[in-house]
Amino acid sequence: MAEQRSPHDLPDVAGLSVAVLGGTGDQGRGLARRFALAGHEVILGSRSAERARSAAEELGAGLPVRGLDNAAAAEQGDIVIVAVPWEGHRDLLASLADRLAGKIVVDCVNPLGFDKKGAYALPVEEGSAAQQAAAVLPDSRVVAAFHHVSAVVLLDPEVAEVDLDVLVLGDDREATDTVRALAARIPGVRGIYGGRLRNAHQVEAFTANLISINRRYKAHAGVRVTDV
Amino acid sequence: MAEQRSPHDLPDVAGLSVAVLGGTGDQGRGLARRFALAGHEVILGSRSAERARSAAEELGAGLPVRGLDNAAAAEQGDIVIVAVPWEGHRDLLASLADRLAGKIVVDCVNPLGFDKKGAYALPVEEGSAAQQAAAVLPDSRVVAAFHHVSAVVLLDPEVAEVDLDVLVLGDDREATDTVRALAARIPGVRGIYGGRLRNAHQVEAFTANLISINRRYKAHAGVRVTDV
Repeated sequence: MAEQRSPHDLPDVAGLSVAVLGGTGDQGRGLARRFALAGHEVILGSRSAERARSAAEELGAGLPVRGLDNAAAAEQGDIVIVAVPWEGHRDLLASLADRLAGKIVVDCVNPLGFDKKGAYALPVEEGSAAQQAAAVLPDSRVVAAFHHVSAVVLLDPEVAEVDLDVLVLGDDREATDTVRALAARIPGVRGIYGGRLRNAHQVEAFTANLISINRRYKAHAGVRVTDV
Repeated sequence: MAEQRSPHDLPDVAGLSVAVLGGTGDQGRGLARRFALAGHEVILGSRSAERARSAAEELGAGLPVRGLDNAAAAEQGDIVIVAVPWEGHRDLLASLADRLAGKIVVDCVNPLGFDKKGAYALPVEEGSAAQQAAAVLPDSRVVAAFHHVSAVVLLDPEVAEVDLDVLVLGDDREATDTVRALAARIPGVRGIYGGRLRNAHQVEAFTANLISINRRYKAHAGVRVTDV
């Protein structure tokens, strides 16, 4: 593979299949829908294969989405997105470590707590959900991305273009470039390199700020990076 | 004061003077320059009044900027911006607590470390620089803002409009609205409410990600909030 000259050169990912673990949640279904619309074969994973199947069907008969249990989904996706609830994140990934070996695993989990003042970041022993994933999946290529996407926007049939940059973090340049290219498959979205995995915590935690912004401005706020 | 109806209604801050503690550093001088250009009386503070005076003079003879020691600057500014190095942040603020009582204090300090892999967030006992300021200044109205402004851009005479949203965090609505209005005095900039002080850490720490982005893309990256 030739050395990439510009940070804007990205690989062609059109042929890659995408598995979404925790794919029956809002964020998972939203991402699944957008990648299927872009032509990717998408596998929704869930603890229950039955629920995964119905969620896949509900996304629309014409879309290339099917539902399986998380383990089968992990095995079949070329790229595996982790969109499970924070509670259970570590255990699920640890149980799938063999199946995820060698694959690009994209963690988009935001460890947040909620109280009457709104959302706040939970402390994570490993530093961040993404670093926890990297710790329990030593043979996978862990990338952090898609933290700030609004499930409401992704699932809205009225929204053709999504006004958002996806920050993509990781220590493996080829893997982050692949995920940046995947993000850019959603019309309107750019995948912007956002730093190493050790700087993932603040990107995950910033979702709490976006929730505050949404509440104050009655918006579905996202982020664009300027001068890039 | 009437209840504000829209989150976009902001107070008139044109008549307020702005002190910048640590005002001889790049970020402090950059902010000082932009507020002076907007017509605010600006007081640069520094440990050495002499250095503050020369920094003020260097900003341009026609600008309403003068230099004083930090204590005198703290006393004279209607709004006081804290742009000091992280090291020494707590001690300086503690020493000025009386002078800062009752004032809006805007913390824009990013507690970062640097090694050969780039920048990373330092742990802060109180959670963030802004929460540390609030802890040592119990009688001040502490707001966090201006973390992501590029000093290079602020100081560049070629840049008339700054392409950036300033995230403004705090628990005092009137104080955050005032600082949001102050941010908007810089052409191109919006001041966006970004959450409570307990969510300041990730905004400070995100500066490490912007540094990574700048390095990868050879940019002066900032952030815009979409759908607001």
